[in-house]
Amino acid sequence: MIVKLLLDGKREGKELAPEDIRELVAGYTRGDVPDYQMAAFAMAVCCKGMTDAEMLALTEAMRDSGECLSWRDLPSPTADKHSTGGVGDKLSLVVQPLAAACGLAVPSLTGRGLGLTGGTADKMESIPGYVAGLSLADYRKVVSECGCSLTVQTGEIAPADKKLYALRDVTGTVPSIPLIVASILSKKLAEGAETLVFDVKCGTGAFMQARPEAVSLARALVAGARGAGRKAAALVTAMDEPLGFTVGNALEVQEALEVLKGRSGAHDVANLSVELAAWMVSLAKGMPLDEARDVCRARLADGSALKRFACMVRLHGGDLAAFEKRQGDGAIPLARGRAVSLSSGYVASIDAGKVAQAAFELGAGRGQSSDSIDPSAGVRLLVAHGDRVSAGQAVAELCSSMRPDRLDAAVKLVESAVSVSAMAPAPKPLVLEVVQ
Amino acid sequence: MIVKLLLDGKREGKELAPEDIRELVAGYTRGDVPDYQMAAFAMAVCCKGMTDAEMLALTEAMRDSGECLSWRDLPSPTADKHSTGGVGDKLSLVVQPLAAACGLAVPSLTGRGLGLTGGTADKMESIPGYVAGLSLADYRKVVSECGCSLTVQTGEIAPADKKLYALRDVTGTVPSIPLIVASILSKKLAEGAETLVFDVKCGTGAFMQARPEAVSLARALVAGARGAGRKAAALVTAMDEPLGFTVGNALEVQEALEVLKGRSGAHDVANLSVELAAWMVSLAKGMPLDEARDVCRARLADGSALKRFACMVRLHGGDLAAFEKRQGDGAIPLARGRAVSLSSGYVASIDAGKVAQAAFELGAGRGQSSDSIDPSAGVRLLVAHGDRVSAGQAVAELCSSMRPDRLDAAVKLVESAVSVSAMAPAPKPLVLEVVQ
Repeated sequence: MIVKLLLDGKREGKELAPEDIRELVAGYTRGDVPDYQMAAFAMAVCCKGMTDAEMLALTEAMRDSGECLSWRDLPSPTADKHSTGGVGDKLSLVVQPLAAACGLAVPSLTGRGLGLTGGTADKMESIPGYVAGLSLADYRKVVSECGCSLTVQTGEIAPADKKLYALRDVTGTVPSIPLIVASILSKKLAEGAETLVFDVKCGTGAFMQARPEAVSLARALVAGARGAGRKAAALVTAMDEPLGFTVGNALEVQEALEVLKGRSGAHDVANLSVELAAWMVSLAKGMPLDEARDVCRARLADGSALKRFACMVRLHGGDLAAFEKRQGDGAIPLARGRAVSLSSGYVASIDAGKVAQAAFELGAGRGQSSDSIDPSAGVRLLVAHGDRVSAGQAVAELCSSMRPDRLDAAVKLVESAVSVSAMAPAPKPLVLEVVQ
Repeated sequence: MIVKLLLDGKREGKELAPEDIRELVAGYTRGDVPDYQMAAFAMAVCCKGMTDAEMLALTEAMRDSGECLSWRDLPSPTADKHSTGGVGDKLSLVVQPLAAACGLAVPSLTGRGLGLTGGTADKMESIPGYVAGLSLADYRKVVSECGCSLTVQTGEIAPADKKLYALRDVTGTVPSIPLIVASILSKKLAEGAETLVFDVKCGTGAFMQARPEAVSLARALVAGARGAGRKAAALVTAMDEPLGFTVGNALEVQEALEVLKGRSGAHDVANLSVELAAWMVSLAKGMPLDEARDVCRARLADGSALKRFACMVRLHGGDLAAFEKRQGDGAIPLARGRAVSLSSGYVASIDAGKVAQAAFELGAGRGQSSDSIDPSAGVRLLVAHGDRVSAGQAVAELCSSMRPDRLDAAVKLVESAVSVSAMAPAPKPLVLEVVQ
């Protein structure tokens, strides 16, 4: 294969042969295909798209650039949930242990956040002692022992994706459904779970802001996963408002723990967690969805999901008691602030993007990968969609240990994020669409 | 300007601001913008196109990446002709001295060929002693003294184009009209001629094979040149058959000389040269085209164009007498071959692409820029479109000094290039379209 001819073909919108795509990715991973040719390829894909067959070939080539795990030695069916990322999205902390409690093995290689808020690995590391960066061997042990593990993705998994993602980030080639699918799926396929459930976030706080695009991504993810021989479904879910009441690493772990204990008022977190876990159980075990929902609700209610979570934390070296003690004591971050409602009425919307920006200002996220995160920083909302509020009433607490100077700006952001209307707003659906 | 945002804009088909394009090109020339971002940009332009304003900004930015010449100190109006390149296209060797003989100053920075046959500089260098690589100061002297100069383009002119062209060549981003226009025009604008006439070749032996694309390129070149304040016109001309009877460096110089002496049977070369020179004279002097044609015919007939050519060769260090003696003696290349007609009838077509391929096999072109050229190698056709031939009659002579082993293959190519029909074919027009 001559890369130039392949680029000519893609530029003209021709369908590329799977073996040519494989060679391109293998050459790029080895360093034989230079960045400038791969950048031209990525831009051509952004402009001309890919057929399902091309997308699958790209995905599989990227998967095969590194280690591919197999869980055949485990007795349980394997499943994983992947979210495209949203504000306050602590669902993995609930869904993964819950699915494990329902008898699945849930191997989750997860990421650190680069953007407004931390990733799942960052959240877990706000638990004292928790080591997200396990070797693949230790990761395998944790999954075998307690049914789930939230481990940060290692360089051994899909190295082509890491390299291509960094290139896409600086060449204006991020927003392409086939490239996004190949990036997500190559890692998930390498991870080895037989069932994959995707939570495709849609709205102002998500990468996909418009519903048609979110649905297209959901369809492409399911088609790709099926093409690679996995069972798959995707839920397109609302991300106009933050999930739950908290945005920020330790705050979100605390809220997830409360959900696992059945004590949280964040019904959206609990309900969506049950829904996603139910899809995993239903697909992995061939169980009707209604029945799977009942099983999940029961496992959440009887504390078995919490037990899996605690087991996972322990095996990762984390000290949950110390975490709870610190959070319970109020943890006394350096600076605390309070956002108030600017008028009286009903909470009509809470802009997820603005709340995330506020959390970022406080130190909850990374501007670049070398930045460190303040685990204590974040926003805790005190009101939810539809709540009655009066002018001057507190709607959120904010805290930061590293950037007290940004507190005022963050308070203003949160205050501008909360819109109040005279009439009570209609309730918002959580799940916008299901793609099977 | 952040390059990433500019790439986002182009990917989405937005019009970029001229100053952003200028900064991009300046940054790329300095080395601040890496190849991978420029490759993504070039691919986005291939896929999404450019408005006239964007194309002009790109062209001017590339022009301004290096030296820009001015000829204000000369008393004569300045003009140049540029061809997009064809098989047997030795027109610059006739047109430039002819326009000079009509009172224009014709500064022609020209190229070496990378492809099937040599460029104008390669052709001129088959004259013993001719130095195409002059300094800009010496080039200026030659133009001042004899009205024209065929000098190889120096690195001081539009260095951004050289860098971008090399990148486009390996990233599948060559066939884009705005990028082609910016590449051609940036150099021609830097060269400083007030009038530009473009010969856009169209057909199997040209880069633009289809007429609508050739016309689009012609229109874009004229629009760009006008946008930059030059007088301009373009002729879209046929390139399905070789121009004249010869393809190969020394052979083409010899044929051009015969045209300048009024002795050649290559009426297409003479006629198209007069047409192009007439457009230059007409635009540069504001003279009606018919009158300009008469002037050009007269200057060709009275030997003044030949005189300009001889003067230019001498000032470039070339020895025309030695060249003519060598060619006249038959030059005895290492190997000679002969292609014959495979059937009897009328020559219906002579495939320019195949003849060029044959010349390349014989050593007339370069596969890569480090290759050396065999000036003696090439094809001399013995028949023209519409001629009566009988089976077995010689239709071409072939010669090579460096690749005698490829002679048989080249002979077969030329024999397959000549199509014979039972009926006399209609004469073919030379000029397909005029774009003003």
